[in-house]
Amino acid sequence: MRVDQLWRNARLATLVPDVPGIGVVEDGMVASRDGRIAYAGSASRAPRFEVSQADTDCKRRWITPGLIDCHTHLVHAGDRAWEFEQRLAGADYAAIAAGGGGILSTVRATRAAQLPELVSASLPRLDALLAEGVTTLEVKSGYGLDTETEVRQLRAARELARHREVSISTTFLGAHAVPPEMDGSVDRYLDLLCNEMLPAIVTEGLADAVDAYGEHLAFAPHEIRRVFAAAKALGLATRLHADQLSNQHGAALAAEFGCLSADHLEFTDEAGVASLAAAGTTAVMLPAAYYALRETQRPPIESLRRHGVPLAVATDCNPGTAPLTSILLAMNMAATLFQMTVEECIAGVTREAARALGLLSNAGTLEAGKWCDLAIWDIERPAELVYRMGFNPLHRRIRRGR
Amino acid sequence: MRVDQLWRNARLATLVPDVPGIGVVEDGMVASRDGRIAYAGSASRAPRFEVSQADTDCKRRWITPGLIDCHTHLVHAGDRAWEFEQRLAGADYAAIAAGGGGILSTVRATRAAQLPELVSASLPRLDALLAEGVTTLEVKSGYGLDTETEVRQLRAARELARHREVSISTTFLGAHAVPPEMDGSVDRYLDLLCNEMLPAIVTEGLADAVDAYGEHLAFAPHEIRRVFAAAKALGLATRLHADQLSNQHGAALAAEFGCLSADHLEFTDEAGVASLAAAGTTAVMLPAAYYALRETQRPPIESLRRHGVPLAVATDCNPGTAPLTSILLAMNMAATLFQMTVEECIAGVTREAARALGLLSNAGTLEAGKWCDLAIWDIERPAELVYRMGFNPLHRRIRRGR
Repeated sequence: MRVDQLWRNARLATLVPDVPGIGVVEDGMVASRDGRIAYAGSASRAPRFEVSQADTDCKRRWITPGLIDCHTHLVHAGDRAWEFEQRLAGADYAAIAAGGGGILSTVRATRAAQLPELVSASLPRLDALLAEGVTTLEVKSGYGLDTETEVRQLRAARELARHREVSISTTFLGAHAVPPEMDGSVDRYLDLLCNEMLPAIVTEGLADAVDAYGEHLAFAPHEIRRVFAAAKALGLATRLHADQLSNQHGAALAAEFGCLSADHLEFTDEAGVASLAAAGTTAVMLPAAYYALRETQRPPIESLRRHGVPLAVATDCNPGTAPLTSILLAMNMAATLFQMTVEECIAGVTREAARALGLLSNAGTLEAGKWCDLAIWDIERPAELVYRMGFNPLHRRIRRGR
Repeated sequence: MRVDQLWRNARLATLVPDVPGIGVVEDGMVASRDGRIAYAGSASRAPRFEVSQADTDCKRRWITPGLIDCHTHLVHAGDRAWEFEQRLAGADYAAIAAGGGGILSTVRATRAAQLPELVSASLPRLDALLAEGVTTLEVKSGYGLDTETEVRQLRAARELARHREVSISTTFLGAHAVPPEMDGSVDRYLDLLCNEMLPAIVTEGLADAVDAYGEHLAFAPHEIRRVFAAAKALGLATRLHADQLSNQHGAALAAEFGCLSADHLEFTDEAGVASLAAAGTTAVMLPAAYYALRETQRPPIESLRRHGVPLAVATDCNPGTAPLTSILLAMNMAATLFQMTVEECIAGVTREAARALGLLSNAGTLEAGKWCDLAIWDIERPAELVYRMGFNPLHRRIRRGR
């Protein structure tokens, strides 16, 4: 078999579906051709390779699929360190809101930032994720809340892929909050969102999916239905911030629309879990927000597991509730705080994260035909990726075979 | 004033004592001579400098004292990722102990490792800390539990300072557990510890202090008194792992011996706090162990604050309960989980950490005469050091003026 590159003498976590665990191959090798995996599996069953570029001895290192962060708000301007400091010093939420804090402070900063500023503010966060082996990530809008800024945020997200070797999946989250200029008129804002923002974004091909924030503080089910119906009419996939702070029956709503993912789910009940399972919707676990908000209600992991709902894990990287730029730490938190197993955590940032983004045919496992996105690790066992905190054992990151 | 180096146009968090907060200087500069700080303060009040080596424009970056991690078990062999994985998969502690897990698994691995292996296993962990601006750290023994290995562990700790630009403070923690070959005879082990280990370690100058693990699972107060009396007789400072899992009146015991620090303190009561205050003992907060063990009893921060006990923060870097190699994450956890303020967290890894190590005359603040150990940060406000998770904004680390 003629290939471009070969990585030999490696241990693989292939994450191929329908095998137990994470698809370990002890005598593994991976070959690439034209940026895709030409072979991944046991050396003993491999064809004979003719390697045109590089033949690398991995010295028994582990190879996993390149990691995928399937839920981020990475592109934004400003930070909320001031609020964080004020809250610790004893200020309550009302005082912080009165001082200009909360989500609208990020909206103000993001509206004021031009495209190059948005990109340059986001690159250090992106670089932190790439340094840990991330090869694909999702980026949401939702800090514009007007057509111009939502478009600019999504353009900035797309632009990141021109500055770094990474695949960016974009999500339009206009339904994140109602902007102040609407004076609380949700309907007027949804008119704008459905009739102006969405068409503008679709025309420019800026969004791979549409998300909404379902919460008593944000959008109600009948409002989200409007947004999702408009998205569907334009052929866009949907996802939902569901049941994070209260049970709004968001899981059932996500299932009703066949959402790719339902995210958070702390307050989802058994019926909600069953509806996700029936719809084939992936549950995205976001333990950093749970940690930072000092929540006590954990998502129903046992129930999700029992019903066979696919479980992804993501950073939720955002300036308010999860200023996190470490996918490895998100895995550790999913294990420590949510008691997900090591194998679930690893699958959650590879195969299941790809599924949550609708990218499973191209990413998330080591299988011939998929993008050759690899993370090569200096570890003795995969559990080390989850067990340590604040330690990065990445040896090398490969994207599209390079 | 003739100086070697000058850092100008910086914002400083000097951490000088007896001023409110963290001693902010908005128009700051720092000058070094012979590895020590020659000047740190306002540019407007600075003398005229004659700079022999380098004059650096810091472009309004922030400078703090080099960070100090005052409680680590950094030097050890092996890891406990296997145990971590087993626990998540549902194994109980008895099953893990039967499988060879727990602290004794690290003792076995450490006893089997020669000096070069111990050093090379520890360097990646050390490098992770140095990358975040750490210039001084404490390293404990306690995974040897026999004379030869305790000595080797402390030699390895000293050796780290020959491989990297860092100051290492060593602590002898023979009283960490009773080794299996003692068949549960604590007295026999303490005979060995006091009559053989301690003199051997003192002869070689291997320990700057002596620590003990006070807990119902470990050593009782009367046993610790024996260890501390022997340490005092040899002129060594003491510190104590106190009241982590239950109230053993460890704080009072630490105060009784004038310990430099009492560490953990989750179960310390008001009387214990008062005794720490009276003794001038520093309380070292270790939130990573609290996080990893999913504890719910927080240390009495309010009470410690009210009594004016100095509060330090450290990683507790160890393979069992805190596989953490990020001092920035330790700060975030101290804020998020223990509700320490931003200023307390920053002081906790600089001035108060230096105090916990008895190094305050040389480190921990930006004051003339101290070691010129600096951390220069790409941040807009100090709160960013605490607020983010898994992000390293270090611009440059300076140790002894270089």
